[in-house]
Amino acid sequence: MKNSPPPAFSAKQPINNVLYAQAGGVTAVINASAAAVIETVFANPNQFGTMYGAFNGIKGILEERLIDLSSLETEPLTAIKYQPGAIFKACRFDLDPLEHNPAQYERMLEIFKTYRIGTFFYNGGNGSMVTAQKVGDYCRQHNHPVNCIGVAKTIDNDLAISHCSPGFGSAAKYLASSFLEATLDTLSMHDTSTRFFVMETMGRNTGWLTLSAGLIKDVMPDVPLILLPAERPFNQTSFLNKVKQLIQQKGYCVCAVSEGLRNPQGDYLSIANIEHTHERDYTQLGGAGYTIAKLVSNTFNVKSHYAIPDYLQRSASHLVSKTDWQMAYDAGVAAVEAAKKGLHGVLPIVTITSAQPFAWQFKTIPLHEVANLEKTVPDEFISSDGMNLTEQALNYLRPLIQGERPVPFKNGLPDIPVIEFQEVSKKLPVFRAIK
Amino acid sequence: MKNSPPPAFSAKQPINNVLYAQAGGVTAVINASAAAVIETVFANPNQFGTMYGAFNGIKGILEERLIDLSSLETEPLTAIKYQPGAIFKACRFDLDPLEHNPAQYERMLEIFKTYRIGTFFYNGGNGSMVTAQKVGDYCRQHNHPVNCIGVAKTIDNDLAISHCSPGFGSAAKYLASSFLEATLDTLSMHDTSTRFFVMETMGRNTGWLTLSAGLIKDVMPDVPLILLPAERPFNQTSFLNKVKQLIQQKGYCVCAVSEGLRNPQGDYLSIANIEHTHERDYTQLGGAGYTIAKLVSNTFNVKSHYAIPDYLQRSASHLVSKTDWQMAYDAGVAAVEAAKKGLHGVLPIVTITSAQPFAWQFKTIPLHEVANLEKTVPDEFISSDGMNLTEQALNYLRPLIQGERPVPFKNGLPDIPVIEFQEVSKKLPVFRAIK
Repeated sequence: MKNSPPPAFSAKQPINNVLYAQAGGVTAVINASAAAVIETVFANPNQFGTMYGAFNGIKGILEERLIDLSSLETEPLTAIKYQPGAIFKACRFDLDPLEHNPAQYERMLEIFKTYRIGTFFYNGGNGSMVTAQKVGDYCRQHNHPVNCIGVAKTIDNDLAISHCSPGFGSAAKYLASSFLEATLDTLSMHDTSTRFFVMETMGRNTGWLTLSAGLIKDVMPDVPLILLPAERPFNQTSFLNKVKQLIQQKGYCVCAVSEGLRNPQGDYLSIANIEHTHERDYTQLGGAGYTIAKLVSNTFNVKSHYAIPDYLQRSASHLVSKTDWQMAYDAGVAAVEAAKKGLHGVLPIVTITSAQPFAWQFKTIPLHEVANLEKTVPDEFISSDGMNLTEQALNYLRPLIQGERPVPFKNGLPDIPVIEFQEVSKKLPVFRAIK
Repeated sequence: MKNSPPPAFSAKQPINNVLYAQAGGVTAVINASAAAVIETVFANPNQFGTMYGAFNGIKGILEERLIDLSSLETEPLTAIKYQPGAIFKACRFDLDPLEHNPAQYERMLEIFKTYRIGTFFYNGGNGSMVTAQKVGDYCRQHNHPVNCIGVAKTIDNDLAISHCSPGFGSAAKYLASSFLEATLDTLSMHDTSTRFFVMETMGRNTGWLTLSAGLIKDVMPDVPLILLPAERPFNQTSFLNKVKQLIQQKGYCVCAVSEGLRNPQGDYLSIANIEHTHERDYTQLGGAGYTIAKLVSNTFNVKSHYAIPDYLQRSASHLVSKTDWQMAYDAGVAAVEAAKKGLHGVLPIVTITSAQPFAWQFKTIPLHEVANLEKTVPDEFISSDGMNLTEQALNYLRPLIQGERPVPFKNGLPDIPVIEFQEVSKKLPVFRAIK
């Protein structure tokens, strides 16, 4: 990246600079959205001024950790589209309510004024984007016009109203492919070894990723399969009966379970409970797969194995869905188009324009319509016994995993050039986002 | 697969039929070896008669679960090379010592006589192949000449004398690629989220797979990395000091740990201990990653995450090393070449003929030379503090992960046609391998 001269500031300059930041858990394709925002802003120089990125989302903005992207060249911009993680680094950090911490909002206003930010794109989850809107509202009330636009992303697919979430299709493809391979492993070993294999997927309250493992039925229609989505309380008796029946019929059984599976009393089955008290964090899950595997082994005296892909499922840039990758790119383009129309407090969401061939477009809706909503798996996607998926679910999932993106490799490993971004020199006093 | 007419048997027919079976934990490329054996046998019709496969390794042979492969067509034979798992199904089952269970050996002789098996290829681990040799010796002592040839495979890379084991390079490539992606995830989130990420690799007594995660240094030379290979007892104090130092320096730390890591008292750190009492099985591991993650969280009050890829690492046919795939194929060819020379009780192993460009050939050695040996990671591959790998290790590992094999996909998932093999009609009385 070239160093660009510091922009000159004068009161007469228009407030047309752009700021982009990332928040929340990453997806394998979030950086395609980043590249799309940058490229589309660059393509509209009459409407937009200098393009900034921020490190660590809104926390980095408070701390004035900004990157001047105006001299970003084509080559790194292309590389960004293939990068896992969040290219500008993300955060799990939200602003406090205005009444509790007005200093944060004053600081945001100060940053936005200093850098003449007229458009703020926040690529994150529900909560983050609502916060961004609040900042925008505050700035507008204090005589600094800024449009805040959300860019959707989440592997959990829990974004309401939208047909699906950019990021989900790639995680679903990765999990289904990996589960298929591990199922063939189990199939080939079960006669004298493992009879029960379980893969734990992410998903605190929703079973979308767990259900995606069921896509292996397209390859193995008769696979002895159990899916335990977070939407259904774990019924130990029914589960064990089904395991017993499947092992009797087929010799083995494979299972996918949501990390957030709970028993009928509402307690997580997870054994993770890795203690830590980071003030802004939440209960950490992980380990439901172990609990389930141990239960089966102890009950039936059979060998079981469990896999916990954890971050691998949300960072597997070597196996993304081309459909999802394109959708993540389109989300970025749609956000810039909304900005060009002068919209504020909106989020482009996915609507389906054609089922066959599968085609979508982004439709802009007010952020408050999706705020604090969570899209769980609908009843008709889960079989009546609560432990499998329906044909309707398969019909929904299939289009999202279609297509493979070319994967650049170099010396045997994914070719992921680590791009170093340089922070702009700070103009404002130090501000500590976390005291 | 076509049905072929049952072979006619007469005392005058030569004993030149061939039997191939698979045993032990699978690799992502074991079926390339299977295809190589079949193709090379087919290419030598003057030397070899009917080609049989056996379900479930030596257990399936005892049970007369054989497949007549003579009519296997080109298309499934090509598909086999891309299949994860063991195409004929493997076993974790060994014959008892002759003096304890002569009936097993008599049965093997009966099978070999009935099917005129003149060559037996056993694609498995050390122990299995030694057993196969014992069977061959027994048959020869009882007037049935048979050559037993080993075909090497193991992701653990613990095969002695051989430069490496077919199957290891692919698991190493999968783990290094996945670890790189998860590291970039952690890098991008650590400021307000996970500061410690650990991936648990397979490896009961050897740290080869753990060390392979260190290949990410080729992309991120300064990555804050800790490797905990099984060869070094876990020193909690040194480990925690290093974690602290790296998090202070870089803000985060990533770690790979062998499932078989032990404390200085020799106890496994694993928490799996999934109880089961299958008579022929052994202590099951899994969970060292959880133990390590919990330790770091509890000690430093930071968020940590752990991934346990488990079977995903040995069945990831979507991400195999082309070098390893070729080597697995060559292992099968070398075994048939050894059979053509009339050798018995041998194993083709890998020797390096050129470092640059990397080139190998297979050299046939007597099985007893490798029996019951285990190749652990040499001292010079592990850094002096026991928690990283050396440049020598990188030099060793790099060539094994080079190259990508094209991955066939269909409807969004790896194109893995499930091939159904038909068992031959049994000619002998029922024999129960496990009472």
